[in-house]
Amino acid sequence: MEKININELLSLLKEKKFKEVKEIFENTPIIDISDEVNTLDENELNENITYLLYIFKIVKPEISAEFFSNLNSEIQSKLINSLNDEEIQKLVEISSNDDLTDFISYWPANVVTKIFKNTSKSDREIINKLLGYKEDSAGSIMTSEYLTLLDDMKVKDAISLIRKEGRKAETIYTLFVKNNSFDLVGVLELDDLIFANEDSLLKDIISKNYLTCNVDDDQEDVAKIFKRYDLNALAVLNEDNKLTGIITIDDIMDVIEKEKNEDIEAMNKVTPLEHSYTETGVFKLAFKCIPWLIILIVFNIGSMVLQNEFQDIISSLAVVSIFLTMVCDCAGNSGSQASTLMIRGLSTGDFKTGDFFKILWKEFRVAFITGIVVAIFNFLWVLFMFSVQIIDIQPGNSAGVNDDLLTWVALSGIVSLTLFLNIILSKTLGLVLVFGLSKFKLDPAVIAGPAITTVMDIVSLGIYFGTLSWVLSSGLLSGL
Amino acid sequence: MEKININELLSLLKEKKFKEVKEIFENTPIIDISDEVNTLDENELNENITYLLYIFKIVKPEISAEFFSNLNSEIQSKLINSLNDEEIQKLVEISSNDDLTDFISYWPANVVTKIFKNTSKSDREIINKLLGYKEDSAGSIMTSEYLTLLDDMKVKDAISLIRKEGRKAETIYTLFVKNNSFDLVGVLELDDLIFANEDSLLKDIISKNYLTCNVDDDQEDVAKIFKRYDLNALAVLNEDNKLTGIITIDDIMDVIEKEKNEDIEAMNKVTPLEHSYTETGVFKLAFKCIPWLIILIVFNIGSMVLQNEFQDIISSLAVVSIFLTMVCDCAGNSGSQASTLMIRGLSTGDFKTGDFFKILWKEFRVAFITGIVVAIFNFLWVLFMFSVQIIDIQPGNSAGVNDDLLTWVALSGIVSLTLFLNIILSKTLGLVLVFGLSKFKLDPAVIAGPAITTVMDIVSLGIYFGTLSWVLSSGLLSGL
Repeated sequence: MEKININELLSLLKEKKFKEVKEIFENTPIIDISDEVNTLDENELNENITYLLYIFKIVKPEISAEFFSNLNSEIQSKLINSLNDEEIQKLVEISSNDDLTDFISYWPANVVTKIFKNTSKSDREIINKLLGYKEDSAGSIMTSEYLTLLDDMKVKDAISLIRKEGRKAETIYTLFVKNNSFDLVGVLELDDLIFANEDSLLKDIISKNYLTCNVDDDQEDVAKIFKRYDLNALAVLNEDNKLTGIITIDDIMDVIEKEKNEDIEAMNKVTPLEHSYTETGVFKLAFKCIPWLIILIVFNIGSMVLQNEFQDIISSLAVVSIFLTMVCDCAGNSGSQASTLMIRGLSTGDFKTGDFFKILWKEFRVAFITGIVVAIFNFLWVLFMFSVQIIDIQPGNSAGVNDDLLTWVALSGIVSLTLFLNIILSKTLGLVLVFGLSKFKLDPAVIAGPAITTVMDIVSLGIYFGTLSWVLSSGLLSGL
Repeated sequence: MEKININELLSLLKEKKFKEVKEIFENTPIIDISDEVNTLDENELNENITYLLYIFKIVKPEISAEFFSNLNSEIQSKLINSLNDEEIQKLVEISSNDDLTDFISYWPANVVTKIFKNTSKSDREIINKLLGYKEDSAGSIMTSEYLTLLDDMKVKDAISLIRKEGRKAETIYTLFVKNNSFDLVGVLELDDLIFANEDSLLKDIISKNYLTCNVDDDQEDVAKIFKRYDLNALAVLNEDNKLTGIITIDDIMDVIEKEKNEDIEAMNKVTPLEHSYTETGVFKLAFKCIPWLIILIVFNIGSMVLQNEFQDIISSLAVVSIFLTMVCDCAGNSGSQASTLMIRGLSTGDFKTGDFFKILWKEFRVAFITGIVVAIFNFLWVLFMFSVQIIDIQPGNSAGVNDDLLTWVALSGIVSLTLFLNIILSKTLGLVLVFGLSKFKLDPAVIAGPAITTVMDIVSLGIYFGTLSWVLSSGLLSGL
């Protein structure tokens, strides 16, 4: 495998060393060449666009189409504007129509017009139809370039048909078989065809027990089917249950990648980006972050009200405020641990929403053990911090509390008790939220985190200050 | 497609209606049947194990092997213990050796012994070799069941060889071509073979510009190659650069799924589980959560020390402590927003660690805009909360500050300034951490979150209390 460098490529093009360029395109993965070209900035691009156009004259159309499909949308638009009609026509013909549909949704209107001018009427209809499916639907990633066979064909005839027509199809590894009235009756893997007797009829070897999806199905659900059943390609049916397209595994890999990024972004309080970071403007990026920060500031109102109520305790014994961030953080963290495990369990099918009580009982025991261990550790840790005076109680505080071992034990005990209750409540809350949101088809990855933090902040502060004010008002501490 | 129900299946088995059972196995995706059997609890399983054994006598070996491979390890072990030697031998023969290796690492020793007793010496050697590769390496997911062709074969001879030998291979869609000295010289996709002239020699049609990976490569890196180059299968080379196995796309789908779960778990402070939630014991689950909670409590020491230093301010003006959790949360959130975008950008190849300064400048501008907008919103929001007395300043506080508009403006301003600086610093820190950790090949998904929270808690509190103590000691507020 050869490595390619953009400057090398450009100077070969400038010097019209087309044989060498051709060789590079034959011996390097095309995506690596495209990616080198993608590194050009606007000035470099404008300087070199004429040289890049040579590529479309030198290399085979299939290769230039692949090269083109991996360029970023800015470079694609520039190229389309500079290519002549004939070259565009060739490019459109070779490109698969799901790729083309994908590009068109990124390009400026004048480029799209230029493309449509060079597209046959039937292709234009297909592209418009594909553009009509809503984002994230199966329809929007399917292709209409698949191979159908007839069920009364013999295996050997099917193979010669594939030889003749297969190059136009997006895959020949999964074949779709119709009957004489053009209804889909079965699916065939190419290896079944290869292994079958040459004179068998397709109807005798097709699998009738095949899977399909609908144009309106969510892409993520389609990806789940691919993962569960190890598919190469899946038939897509329209509203009338007729075969209207297929989805192939490479498109599903992109869906899985996108879904992963969206989940992770949502969990980390960024509204998912439509394009990559470098392709997104500074203002747009800021406004993907701002709403979340503002919402979380507003949601903090509950815990502000509570803390406001307990200002007396804070001003009479300032040391109690030192534990506030830690107590709230710990509740938030243990809640998001539970919700993460629940989201994973439900999404991988490890358990179902119907298993609620079984899982609740298990998670309750997990929370109990976690709570006990963390509380004991924290008890000793806070005592340690008091004893080495990392934290201390102000002498002459108006709560009338002494800076001695008994007070340390009491305070440390209250913090630890709060943590113990927090962990049990937050894990339960995490579980209930995820099951509840899933039941109502809401996305727990987005909502569970902020909801847990908001609710648990209030609960944590309530438990902590509640216990504190009871202990302080009882006079137990100051009486010691 | 038929739906299957475990009770129905068991009663058919009990009534020895084997023809119906056979039909079910022919018309239902096998993984759906396995999953129904997986719902049996231990008692039900013990009661019905003899009936389940019938399946291995009734259905074809390839189907029973697939059925078996999708059962959970507990049921697999029980079945192996009850099957006779001949049946085990058949099962082992049919199962692909990467699956088998995978099972064996889950099963108890007595079951493994029983398996090895029924495995041919050569298979045993292969399994042991596969077991020797370290977890998460390419070697541990590769299979040795692939088809190699010779480069001086004609296309038609290659096809008839595939017909004869292909069933034993894990895939025939990617074929590996060796020369006479048994070195890998090229890779061939089945469709290239189908489209080629029957009398061409393989050496003339193979792609010499193929990709490979090494047995020790990390699975995640291998998955990246599959995604980038849309592969079906990839050759795995050993230390001597000889072909030793292949990895297929279905195994890579599992790697991607596992990787996604691990990333999400790590980001949410759960040590990734090896097995599913339901298969993991309560104690083990608790100890996946406990270390993180304890580490984060310990890391809180820095912010405790700082808060301890400023107890004077807190006790003289308790209202300032109300903003602590919000200020720290906001810094943590905006930092994790930045680190998420950076992790995604680096992992998808949108930018490289070498683009540090370019990205830093962009993210700085994003942070600036975000900071301004959030700070202005917060300023108005805090003023609003003061004016409707959701929060208020205690009369007669020892700081000598009045509960009036000017004080509200000053406090609100200090909180907003802190937020503004926090957002800029935390986003910068998120970026620097991710680039730094990636540079040193550490996993930013695991380390960045807790590190940002810990550092930003200290920075936030420093800025907040620093500004506050300056304003208070200046007498500006009490003098008003």
